[in-house]
Amino acid sequence: MSPLPSRQVVLARHIPGLPSPEDFRVEPVDVPDPKEGELRVRTHYVSVDPGTLSRLGGVASYAPPLAPGDVIHSAAVGEVLESRHASFAVGDLVLGAWGWRAHAVVGGRGLRKVEPGPEPLSAELGVLGIPGLTAYFGILELGQPKAGETVLVSSAAGAVGSIAGQLAKRRGARVVGTAGGPAKCRWLVEELGFDVAVDYRAEPDLEAALRRAAPEGYGVFLDNVGGTTLDAALACMAQRGRVVVSGLVADYGVPAKQRAGLKNTPYLITHRLRMEGFVVLDYAERFPQARAELRQWLADGTLRHREHVVEGLDAAPAAFAGLFRGENFGRALVRVLKTPGPPSR
Amino acid sequence: MSPLPSRQVVLARHIPGLPSPEDFRVEPVDVPDPKEGELRVRTHYVSVDPGTLSRLGGVASYAPPLAPGDVIHSAAVGEVLESRHASFAVGDLVLGAWGWRAHAVVGGRGLRKVEPGPEPLSAELGVLGIPGLTAYFGILELGQPKAGETVLVSSAAGAVGSIAGQLAKRRGARVVGTAGGPAKCRWLVEELGFDVAVDYRAEPDLEAALRRAAPEGYGVFLDNVGGTTLDAALACMAQRGRVVVSGLVADYGVPAKQRAGLKNTPYLITHRLRMEGFVVLDYAERFPQARAELRQWLADGTLRHREHVVEGLDAAPAAFAGLFRGENFGRALVRVLKTPGPPSR
Repeated sequence: MSPLPSRQVVLARHIPGLPSPEDFRVEPVDVPDPKEGELRVRTHYVSVDPGTLSRLGGVASYAPPLAPGDVIHSAAVGEVLESRHASFAVGDLVLGAWGWRAHAVVGGRGLRKVEPGPEPLSAELGVLGIPGLTAYFGILELGQPKAGETVLVSSAAGAVGSIAGQLAKRRGARVVGTAGGPAKCRWLVEELGFDVAVDYRAEPDLEAALRRAAPEGYGVFLDNVGGTTLDAALACMAQRGRVVVSGLVADYGVPAKQRAGLKNTPYLITHRLRMEGFVVLDYAERFPQARAELRQWLADGTLRHREHVVEGLDAAPAAFAGLFRGENFGRALVRVLKTPGPPSR
Repeated sequence: MSPLPSRQVVLARHIPGLPSPEDFRVEPVDVPDPKEGELRVRTHYVSVDPGTLSRLGGVASYAPPLAPGDVIHSAAVGEVLESRHASFAVGDLVLGAWGWRAHAVVGGRGLRKVEPGPEPLSAELGVLGIPGLTAYFGILELGQPKAGETVLVSSAAGAVGSIAGQLAKRRGARVVGTAGGPAKCRWLVEELGFDVAVDYRAEPDLEAALRRAAPEGYGVFLDNVGGTTLDAALACMAQRGRVVVSGLVADYGVPAKQRAGLKNTPYLITHRLRMEGFVVLDYAERFPQARAELRQWLADGTLRHREHVVEGLDAAPAAFAGLFRGENFGRALVRVLKTPGPPSR
């Protein structure tokens, strides 16, 4: 064993607004031998998450900000190349948070062994990972739609929204989703069973479009977008509606003073609305049971998901920047395995 | 019996922004004889409520808008002059919603007989009326402060806030209130037992001032103001804080597009905040029990309240306009009994 030549993606400079590929740098790195209690892993997939942007601006958020030169954080799945940890053996598939690296040395903490199953390994980063679990707890725990209620999901063709809408359908709700462009909208209705898809790009007045899609008002809104989308939806909620704030992509990387701001706050009172933010990691103890249910629904074909996979770490920065233009169609992932540069072992 | 010459205050014109006395008109009126099932009442006090503004702009809200010429809605207390209703007798004291009228003919619906007690009749419109009940359910039912938590109350010297802060103290919370000017702030701390009063007029940076007053963060915020106050407080909440939206005075009469807007929405996620609006009338079934408790605390001297009483219906429009400049110090009421014009009977 010896240091392993590999590559990684680091932050080149703080990102004050929306990201561009030039804000990142792909660089070679020698990955050291694992020490006692550590393992060396080869990455198969890493995730591309909009929420990461909140840590790239140099401003403290709920997680500390990254400094230039830091490796970009993300979830990752891969296989164990060498192990000096009693719980993991060479060849094990593992999920961790080692970020945009082709290889990494990691400790056992925060690492989870993935049992091979019918789903591809990439699903552990999507429908069976944080996005799927966010949809699960956001809808089933916080939103709790009742049969007959209408549920609105923003960014509905995305990693969280696409699962959330299907879970709401399982509960007997009518489901409306917003997405950008006719292809995504068609997919929502024809493949995932959404009742209505609202193409926000084609609607000059989103509030009016949301109202048309559900004149009865929304009992639950799972929001991944924030900004003007959240504001428009606030005006279209039913009495006692629940707004579950799962992500605020529109606000990430925008200084507070420059944000559009929520102006429809009086609806909170007139419609007795509840608005709640959450961090899915708070439900970590219940992840195994939630994941088992999601796995079951995938197996019986009642839950569908879609991945937007780009090839190679070098493509990660552009994929990240594309998230904020709605370019991904499904869970955005980077397949790292074939990344050129690191010698295959 | 015969028509009774009286006076009333009507809307002179729709109010697109903040109100001025010229938006109202005091006019003479003949109050007819009560028909079967009705009573004729003489008003003692009417309330002056900021929330009324949301119905004076000509735009639909949770209650239908008033038209020019309509009598201004409000709560009112008075005595029965003539009764053709089996449940009410001449001389009974009653509470209803007949608005800014010196006399009125009302049906029995929505009318409540007030038993004479140690509190003056005016208390039925304040600490024992909608404001006191709003504080009661807002703090004890929605906010549910725990001992050791810090509670923030905006408009703390007002009708709702002053009671809310005291109820939070009863629960063992540390209590911070915002108010305008040193006199109100002194009253909060010295008379009502607030731990800190923040004079928003003296603070160029409200967010910084709120943070200084509670570096530990606020577990509960009962908001009567909205706008930039709500936005500043969002940034100062503790993890899992509850924001109870009881009133949004800053937003009333301001078209949505011109509102400052909430920009600190990311704190909803990072701090797992819950934000909830409510309408106190939803708790009407529990009013008698809540009122009994409030009465008890008034009687034993552990709950204090303050009324800002102006004399005569003619003074009502100016008192209403003054609400939005923070001119009232305590529950704003109009004593109507001595209003010149109607013959005393």
